[in-house]
Amino acid sequence: MTLCISLAARPTDIGTRFHNYLYEELGLNYIYKAFTTTDLPAAITGVRGLGIRGCAISMPFKEDVIALVDRLDPSAQAIDSVNTIVNDDGVLTAYNTDYLAVARLLRGHAVPATHSVLVRGSGGMAKAVVAALRDAGFDRVRIVARNERTGRALAGQYGFAWQAEVEEPAADLLINVTPLGMTGDDADVVAFPQHAIDAARVVFDVVASPSETPLVIAARETGKPVITGAEVVALQAEEQFVLYTSIRPTPEQVRAAGKFSRR
Amino acid sequence: MTLCISLAARPTDIGTRFHNYLYEELGLNYIYKAFTTTDLPAAITGVRGLGIRGCAISMPFKEDVIALVDRLDPSAQAIDSVNTIVNDDGVLTAYNTDYLAVARLLRGHAVPATHSVLVRGSGGMAKAVVAALRDAGFDRVRIVARNERTGRALAGQYGFAWQAEVEEPAADLLINVTPLGMTGDDADVVAFPQHAIDAARVVFDVVASPSETPLVIAARETGKPVITGAEVVALQAEEQFVLYTSIRPTPEQVRAAGKFSRR
Repeated sequence: MTLCISLAARPTDIGTRFHNYLYEELGLNYIYKAFTTTDLPAAITGVRGLGIRGCAISMPFKEDVIALVDRLDPSAQAIDSVNTIVNDDGVLTAYNTDYLAVARLLRGHAVPATHSVLVRGSGGMAKAVVAALRDAGFDRVRIVARNERTGRALAGQYGFAWQAEVEEPAADLLINVTPLGMTGDDADVVAFPQHAIDAARVVFDVVASPSETPLVIAARETGKPVITGAEVVALQAEEQFVLYTSIRPTPEQVRAAGKFSRR
Repeated sequence: MTLCISLAARPTDIGTRFHNYLYEELGLNYIYKAFTTTDLPAAITGVRGLGIRGCAISMPFKEDVIALVDRLDPSAQAIDSVNTIVNDDGVLTAYNTDYLAVARLLRGHAVPATHSVLVRGSGGMAKAVVAALRDAGFDRVRIVARNERTGRALAGQYGFAWQAEVEEPAADLLINVTPLGMTGDDADVVAFPQHAIDAARVVFDVVASPSETPLVIAARETGKPVITGAEVVALQAEEQFVLYTSIRPTPEQVRAAGKFSRR
């Protein structure tokens, strides 16, 4: 039996439920278990020493783990951040399936690289989004972030512009990568102003809980195509699953696993 | 969910089935998985780093692992051999539940320490048996082993006598700790001569596959009380289970788990 695990300061059972659901559905002799650790190097040594096949990496280990693996996949290299490790007979390769998921969603929704883009946010996930945009050939990208330091740094790293607030003209593609609209204090906040939504051709909200955020609802009401955080979460987990097992589940199986995992 | 594992060069699924059966039966949020490793220090670092609760140690790691733990329980110290590690918040304590099982069986079957004893065998399990005899106060013990070097060493370490063959007078308690009677080349061999069986008051065979060895059958035919290898295996696993979970299953539960594990 093959073991895959997750490492997080505060483990949740979402990944555990997603992966174990598909292992059972597909009849794979795999098991998935969530771990926490206070000693990341020891935990990664354990991944090697015990022959653990795959390891999801969550906060706060996504950057520190880079020094502990053997190879960085371009997806992790693009954003200096790891969320997935694959162990091939003791050789650890680090990936970032958030980056892979965003890149695949832009392609899957056929968003042309000629679109102008506003990305709101400057955290770790914003980096995955911005890197995926750059690598897909988007060149009219502006980062909107109230935090000037992180906003300028992110924009500068990928050769894009920074602005503190959404300015007119807005853009063809709006992407929210802030917590605005997420369950909590900012649950009711629409991440972009109505004029920007009206002017957009595609709206993409990375927030996944809930995935029907005020931004997504407003975009749907104006008839815009939307890409949701639920798609990002499901796709990044699917990519992880494929990396661990070399099997690509059907879209129906991924949907069912995603639904089961969020229960 | 709490993880317990086993580490062996050639893992079997017997322990996995025994422990997981009882976890389910008792409704414990535990899981047990068998591992192999080519890097014992890395594997034990992983036990610490991942907070793995318990770890069964099999061949060929039983002695090398001593240097990697924090504390030796007297059961492991008595025979310089470890088959069980318990992780209490990063502090690893090593036990030998074979020793504990033999000691408990001698008490449970009310074998008086005044009995004379013949122990046939001089391997790792013979050491557990001889140490348990010594620590229970038996002082008329002879080791029977064709290998003079290991036989003399074992006898000398615990202050007992060595002999190459079973000599008359035999003893009150006969213990077989060789593979004689085990499935394979020596399946038909009775580990002690008939005169020794006739003269004995108790016969103990550590062979567990099958547990109805020619020696056990011969002893039953002459109406002698017997202690079987199946009891040793079940009891050592039970002791391990108690160390990991602090719960003692009922004898019926242990029997059912043992039966399930051997299927």
